[in-house]
Amino acid sequence: MAFHLLEKNRSGAQMLATVLHEALEKVQRCSSCRTLSETSTCGICSNSRRDRSLLCIVETPSDIQAIEQTAEYRGLYFVLMGRLSPLDGIGPQEIGLDILTERVRAEPVNEVILATNPTLEGEVTAHYISELMHHAGIKVTRLAHGIPIGGELEYVDSSTLSHALTGRREL
Amino acid sequence: MAFHLLEKNRSGAQMLATVLHEALEKVQRCSSCRTLSETSTCGICSNSRRDRSLLCIVETPSDIQAIEQTAEYRGLYFVLMGRLSPLDGIGPQEIGLDILTERVRAEPVNEVILATNPTLEGEVTAHYISELMHHAGIKVTRLAHGIPIGGELEYVDSSTLSHALTGRREL
Repeated sequence: MAFHLLEKNRSGAQMLATVLHEALEKVQRCSSCRTLSETSTCGICSNSRRDRSLLCIVETPSDIQAIEQTAEYRGLYFVLMGRLSPLDGIGPQEIGLDILTERVRAEPVNEVILATNPTLEGEVTAHYISELMHHAGIKVTRLAHGIPIGGELEYVDSSTLSHALTGRREL
Repeated sequence: MAFHLLEKNRSGAQMLATVLHEALEKVQRCSSCRTLSETSTCGICSNSRRDRSLLCIVETPSDIQAIEQTAEYRGLYFVLMGRLSPLDGIGPQEIGLDILTERVRAEPVNEVILATNPTLEGEVTAHYISELMHHAGIKVTRLAHGIPIGGELEYVDSSTLSHALTGRREL
């Protein structure tokens, strides 16, 4: 991309540089949910039609996009901007868990939905937050793990199938 | 494979033919769960240490393999050998639902676990069987659908994420 811009499209490079510069100046963290936003409070947090009793915890701003695309969720978000990873020096403070604890105490949150990834670090983070929330007396739920829609049992890994079995729901 | 066997490995072809012939003679349906077996009752159905109160409904014998690999399930199985598909002329009789209904009435089954694939036809089949079981007064559960273990929210399709949200579990 660098060669193409410098050799064949110098005006495009100029434009890209300007736009990037502008983005760096304008895009900041939402003061409430910590996602990337051009305004001090993002569009979701400032939307009065969202359900303020639901708070969904995600690892990155792109996870918000993924959940918004389902059109299933009407609550608010809190972005960790990472996950607990002691080996990399990322502890509770680095992912803003002190801010989260303050927020659930100050706001009328009834349910915290843990939507961290089902990876090892994501699970540890979810577990840690669930302990924090239990101390604060708030209901904690976790996204369901199991067979993806359209998938076939035969091609699903054992670990997922095992979770699908233990997490089976009554019809 | 055919060219290789006929040109370079005629003795192998002879062996394959004999073995296939033998398999065709010996392998039959298990009289109880309808899976493929060399004996009239398969190893799982004849194992006295399996929990006879649990019955897991799968589409194919290879689904049994997948579930057995999790080492999580200790009950018995029932193999549909297909799924409901009216356009292809496959109705309840073709997938042995009459045999299933008889079996749950005759045996001490407490819970039927529907493990058909989360495809359109698999869901329809699951729904149909759940109605049958409710009439027979038996508890029906369905494998959990959601994010596969090790997956990332960002790369999961909306439909699966939507199921993961609605099927969230309290921690």
